[in-house]
Amino acid sequence: MDSAWLNNNRIREQLKNDVFTLLPNRIAGNDVVKKQLYTEIVEWLKLPVTFDKENASIVLIEENNKYDNDESFDVQEKNGQIIIIGNNSKALLYGFYSLIRMKLTGKLKTGIHTPSQSLRMINHWDQTDGSIERGYSGASIFFGNFNKLDNPDKGNFNVKLINGDIFRHDTKRLVYYARMLASVGINSISINNVNVRGQGIELITNKYLNGVQEIADIFRKFGIKLFLSINWAAPKLIGGLETSNPLDDKVKKFWRDICKNIYSYIPDFGGFVVKADSEGEPGPYQYGCDHAQGANMLADAIKPFDGLIIWRAFVYNSHQDWRNRKNDRAKAAFENFASLDGKFSSNVILQMKFGPIDFQTAEPLQPLFGKLRNTNQMMEFEITAEYLGHQIDINYVLPQWCKMINFNTEYEDLPDPKAGAILRETAVDSNNVGIAAVGNVGMSEHWTGNPLAQSNLYGYGRLCWDNQLSAEEILKEWIIQMFPSIKKESKDKIYSIMITSNKTYADYCAPLGVGFMVVPHYHYGPSVNGYEYDRWGTYHFADRNGVGVDRTIKTGSGFVSMYSKKLANKFENPDTTPMDVMLFFHHLNYDFILPNNKTLIQTIYDLHFRGYENVKKYVKQWNCLKNDIEESIYDTVQVCLNEQLKNALEWRDQVNTYFYRMSGVKDSLGRKIYS
Amino acid sequence: MDSAWLNNNRIREQLKNDVFTLLPNRIAGNDVVKKQLYTEIVEWLKLPVTFDKENASIVLIEENNKYDNDESFDVQEKNGQIIIIGNNSKALLYGFYSLIRMKLTGKLKTGIHTPSQSLRMINHWDQTDGSIERGYSGASIFFGNFNKLDNPDKGNFNVKLINGDIFRHDTKRLVYYARMLASVGINSISINNVNVRGQGIELITNKYLNGVQEIADIFRKFGIKLFLSINWAAPKLIGGLETSNPLDDKVKKFWRDICKNIYSYIPDFGGFVVKADSEGEPGPYQYGCDHAQGANMLADAIKPFDGLIIWRAFVYNSHQDWRNRKNDRAKAAFENFASLDGKFSSNVILQMKFGPIDFQTAEPLQPLFGKLRNTNQMMEFEITAEYLGHQIDINYVLPQWCKMINFNTEYEDLPDPKAGAILRETAVDSNNVGIAAVGNVGMSEHWTGNPLAQSNLYGYGRLCWDNQLSAEEILKEWIIQMFPSIKKESKDKIYSIMITSNKTYADYCAPLGVGFMVVPHYHYGPSVNGYEYDRWGTYHFADRNGVGVDRTIKTGSGFVSMYSKKLANKFENPDTTPMDVMLFFHHLNYDFILPNNKTLIQTIYDLHFRGYENVKKYVKQWNCLKNDIEESIYDTVQVCLNEQLKNALEWRDQVNTYFYRMSGVKDSLGRKIYS
Repeated sequence: MDSAWLNNNRIREQLKNDVFTLLPNRIAGNDVVKKQLYTEIVEWLKLPVTFDKENASIVLIEENNKYDNDESFDVQEKNGQIIIIGNNSKALLYGFYSLIRMKLTGKLKTGIHTPSQSLRMINHWDQTDGSIERGYSGASIFFGNFNKLDNPDKGNFNVKLINGDIFRHDTKRLVYYARMLASVGINSISINNVNVRGQGIELITNKYLNGVQEIADIFRKFGIKLFLSINWAAPKLIGGLETSNPLDDKVKKFWRDICKNIYSYIPDFGGFVVKADSEGEPGPYQYGCDHAQGANMLADAIKPFDGLIIWRAFVYNSHQDWRNRKNDRAKAAFENFASLDGKFSSNVILQMKFGPIDFQTAEPLQPLFGKLRNTNQMMEFEITAEYLGHQIDINYVLPQWCKMINFNTEYEDLPDPKAGAILRETAVDSNNVGIAAVGNVGMSEHWTGNPLAQSNLYGYGRLCWDNQLSAEEILKEWIIQMFPSIKKESKDKIYSIMITSNKTYADYCAPLGVGFMVVPHYHYGPSVNGYEYDRWGTYHFADRNGVGVDRTIKTGSGFVSMYSKKLANKFENPDTTPMDVMLFFHHLNYDFILPNNKTLIQTIYDLHFRGYENVKKYVKQWNCLKNDIEESIYDTVQVCLNEQLKNALEWRDQVNTYFYRMSGVKDSLGRKIYS
Repeated sequence: MDSAWLNNNRIREQLKNDVFTLLPNRIAGNDVVKKQLYTEIVEWLKLPVTFDKENASIVLIEENNKYDNDESFDVQEKNGQIIIIGNNSKALLYGFYSLIRMKLTGKLKTGIHTPSQSLRMINHWDQTDGSIERGYSGASIFFGNFNKLDNPDKGNFNVKLINGDIFRHDTKRLVYYARMLASVGINSISINNVNVRGQGIELITNKYLNGVQEIADIFRKFGIKLFLSINWAAPKLIGGLETSNPLDDKVKKFWRDICKNIYSYIPDFGGFVVKADSEGEPGPYQYGCDHAQGANMLADAIKPFDGLIIWRAFVYNSHQDWRNRKNDRAKAAFENFASLDGKFSSNVILQMKFGPIDFQTAEPLQPLFGKLRNTNQMMEFEITAEYLGHQIDINYVLPQWCKMINFNTEYEDLPDPKAGAILRETAVDSNNVGIAAVGNVGMSEHWTGNPLAQSNLYGYGRLCWDNQLSAEEILKEWIIQMFPSIKKESKDKIYSIMITSNKTYADYCAPLGVGFMVVPHYHYGPSVNGYEYDRWGTYHFADRNGVGVDRTIKTGSGFVSMYSKKLANKFENPDTTPMDVMLFFHHLNYDFILPNNKTLIQTIYDLHFRGYENVKKYVKQWNCLKNDIEESIYDTVQVCLNEQLKNALEWRDQVNTYFYRMSGVKDSLGRKIYS
């Protein structure tokens, strides 16, 4: 098992002259975080802790109610001592990991460190049989047989029933993972797939709560609350009721009883994550109720225990008729939820994917952000690389996420109209907002398939904590911690590969924000028409004259109207639409001159040739690192890169040939496009 | 369980005044066929058998060595008696079923009835876990758990390991099935998938031979020999050897021992069916041997027991690069086998799919037929409707098969240059030629999913027996036997639906012989580009100007040159190429004027509109039968028809829209084509 960016030997090397002290010295019996902090220092790093403050080089001080935010920590440097102060031991734990990072990167940042977002969450799509929906890193770390480490993704996510124990009980690995998450400030985790199937439905019952408790007990020590995904139809499916109608008293009682029971196992249980009325999952619509009614019923049941209901806004009609060009899946979340603003309870959070469709290489912001003004919201990312190369292709995705967090909604009446800030500004309860992301780890040797994909988990946490961090800063931090002892030029090579990798991947995939074009269900590799005549509402509408989805107000689906006036004006016109989402908003002729002063068709060709060329360069650059990087990491990345090269070639050629056959236009530079 | 076309009550009704006699009266102890014949009359039909020839209305006489062909039977009418004479009881069994058919159809055909083909075989692609590769009729009738009747086809054919007994032991059903086969003259059956995986590899060992024997014992009574498919690499996989090299003495011994052992269980065992070096299966190529060496080694091992080696010619490179337009999968069998003519042992049979690709709605004849002059050959059909509607869509496929059997190769030096006749004319041993087809039955209520798909099993047998039968005659026979008591106008309706159904299906699928355009792997429903950039070598090359595969000598892959000169001249020129395979041979512009005096694009549109309209008519016509047909059959077909209507609509619209987007040409009749 790889230690990711937290190699204790490397860290001890940096801190070998340090002596810690924790104040006050006593540890309250139930403060498991403080106990863990002590354990981290003494057992994990094997560094000394002294009772004598004067002898310490690093002083961690708990001072209750000193700061506005219970998670904030204050870093001071005084008389050669580094002093970290926080309201409680969780804040100190964050300070401790932050200190490690500062030591390794050599940059001490004094002052108060406060998280940008209250909830910083990972959603696992792990299933009770050890498989992971959209998992590319081996089997689940939570569920499944101890010896079954693989989990080949085939785009088919049925769950097998397991005889006996469904839990993996790999405590050591869970402790490592909890540390990884805490080290970047993650404070919430849901451990099972939002599509809750088979035995997963029963995780909320006595049958499995001992196992869930075991996991919660581990994460609690690292300041992380545990959540469960539930099946909306549980009252019918496992409760012996005739209905799951949220207005039914028996249903309400079912959920109250469920909550009460869960909290008897896990007193600080986080709450439920719910995917309802989407892609075949049951939900309140079938009882003539809206999503607020559906969510609020659960919210009432869990409120006495201070739990949350995280309600996903990923609701759309997955049986669209491709013949009807008026349909537009991008409008779905808005159409389902805009009118419910203000109707959700204060302990309900609406969780929305960052874009209006589904984690594509480029999308504009989901227009509900900024539109909703009285609703707790979370923005959702996908760390697992479903559409972004399956953690085979290198894809450091922070550039995209930073862009989305800082996406300017251009609402003039909001103090800070950027997406990340809006979450607080439009909340009913600003404690109940934040960011969630689908996790990307599994039982694979390096946690994440391609070891470089660890950077996305690291970066996700860092960005959640501090929305102002840049992708560049975060990457540099990660590289320094992962590869502290390699040559500077090696670090530079890794940096130059990774910092361009998100753009490179987007270059060779579906062009200019039109999305998809992937092999159906599996979602790796090209299939230009794979979803073109399908029911999922994800089309490119390419014909002999042009390509793209017209979502304008004037001639298209009208999706553009869902944004603020200023932003809508921008997106309505191709001349003011950003290049990366050009075909998301516009159906353009191949000879249309884009803002780059090239035709659309030539731009498509250029992007795809460039994308492949870049991967070729990556392969060469990586080869140079052979003797400087730990063999296992080097080899694994090299195998991935060879796969990526093949993948990029297929994308380049299939997309270029497709559009050449369609348009009949040759590449102006005379490069080979197969006919 | 449906009795298919052999309802004993219906039959007894027709024969209720008949009395049988069998001459000579005694039954030799080991003549299980004669015993069965007796059982058929007395127990199955519950009709009398007399020892007094004078009192009999039907006289079955065994006269050894009277006819040239041991399977022939002679029907005579004398003094109000029907007399059937044959060399042996198997011939009489055929005569008996023939008589039933004649009685039910009311047409007594006197004279000697001799089969056109020696081997008339069904290949089952059943797997040891009860699944069936390309099966659309529920689970295997041979393998799997007694209670597990379903077998949803997902295009994924992994085999699960079964604990304990792999055999279904549904003896009653096997007897019914054997009767169905014998009634139409089938004399050979292989019971397991040619892709031999998992426990299937061990069917040839003591572990499973008791179970195989049980099946063979049943089929033997009906004159049907049992074959097994083998895995070429068995010596390595289950024999404990380091190699499967056909030149290796230990490998030779392995197979000799295997054969000897099998024949100790099944003295009349038919032999082995082998798929080697194809689609990932192992074969002689990996040892630097050719297919003749591979097959002859097995032939030597089985020769002492009079067994056969049926060697499939379906060998091609399934990792083709779509970028290389010189590749042509159609050429594969010819390239692999043409040079081996004359090199196969006399007990080896080369089994070739009727067309050069893979059981598409329309293909020209495999050019090896007529080219090979010193090789035993079998022609292979696929009764199971892999590419022909999955036994959901009605598709009576005999029109296509009759066409292929009678396909004129135009070799001037052959006495009868038609494909069916060529088999005998070019054989090394004319006993060892014939026709094989992949079966289409399973545990579904009516044997074949859609009950109307029974007609293809029936018709297949009939056509194998008599290559001169027309699709029309066969269909009429089948309808009369299946629905003896319905109104004439109902029979006419069923006939008019079924006799056009093969053309209708072809109309709404991939146009004019270009093939595929199906959902990859699953092979039901449209995906125009599904295989277009794939490794399977099945492309249509559509672009903004035209569509089709150029296989001409002058400008294309040169495949055309593999035919006789006369036929090649025909196929080289679109003006003399049959319409149904036009795009198989030619890449044509959309404005090309076809022999029907319409443009190619308009023809594509017309076919697809017509295909869907026909299905709409079928639905209406079928509805009229509601009160005249047995409810369970009526309902099952109606459910299928509703599915077919949806399927035809998807095909129509996706194909038309695809080509409209490509060509920009509107329908000249102004019908709606979605953009």
